Amino acid sequence: MPKLDLAAIPQTNVTGYPSPYDAAVAGRWYRRLAPASGLTLMGASHVTLLPGAFSSQRHWHRGQDELVVMLAGEAVLIDDTGETPVGPGDVLAFPAGEANGHHLHNRSGEPCTFVAISAGTREADSGEYSDIDMVFDAQGYARKDGTRYAAARTP
Amino acid sequence: MPKLDLAAIPQTNVTGYPSPYDAAVAGRWYRRLAPASGLTLMGASHVTLLPGAFSSQRHWHRGQDELVVMLAGEAVLIDDTGETPVGPGDVLAFPAGEANGHHLHNRSGEPCTFVAISAGTREADSGEYSDIDMVFDAQGYARKDGTRYAAARTP
Repeated sequence: MPKLDLAAIPQTNVTGYPSPYDAAVAGRWYRRLAPASGLTLMGASHVTLLPGAFSSQRHWHRGQDELVVMLAGEAVLIDDTGETPVGPGDVLAFPAGEANGHHLHNRSGEPCTFVAISAGTREADSGEYSDIDMVFDAQGYARKDGTRYAAARTP
Repeated sequence: MPKLDLAAIPQTNVTGYPSPYDAAVAGRWYRRLAPASGLTLMGASHVTLLPGAFSSQRHWHRGQDELVVMLAGEAVLIDDTGETPVGPGDVLAFPAGEANGHHLHNRSGEPCTFVAISAGTREADSGEYSDIDMVFDAQGYARKDGTRYAAARTP
């Protein structure tokens, strides 16, 4: 069925981030829509951030475009230009290769919900985290000096 | 700016559909988000359907995944399985190669708004229309016997 039964798609808050960077996304609950629907050329997640949660560590991608469509609730977009409030109906675009680290922070007292879509070759992707000693590639996470973290990147 | 200023992005109802197939989408007003934001690996449109408008002629793609995120208003999804009402927060997924012709019809008395995202190689894409004598490829539109329509596919 093209109309997704979101409630029937498993929801998880799992992350591959090594400690202590995992704590900030413990309140990020998401459903992977592509495997549930047969999409193979894009990634898509239906995400709910509980109060206090971040969407990710602040990061950017070399090899993937990202688009966020806000559905409900309020969050703050944090990027190199500062802080921007976002709410229902807002659309956020993060082009591949634009070195502008970004994430969303739910500073409200209610959950917020959005759909995040990505496109590009995941196998050739890499990127950096703006605020912490971490980079990523298809194999997982490393420090900025190149030494690897043990945790694997989530599939 | 990652948060798109939607009102500043030009809105159009242009279509490359040949007559008489263009009439059904005259009330489809859309903003192309990728050129406005620097995205190169996906397509994205912010679409408003006026009452009575269709999102497209009923079609499917061989080479592109499509995802629709409903933001406001009500529409009816029509595909090979029948008719399904959709509204704010609903997510619709149309995998590349799945020969299930689909479109949205606004049968309500108010506009409805959604974001439509596509990924895949547009140059290698093609597909068919379910209800009319038309197919498409990267060069434009043809009848099902292969003779071309004069109109060019919209960029």
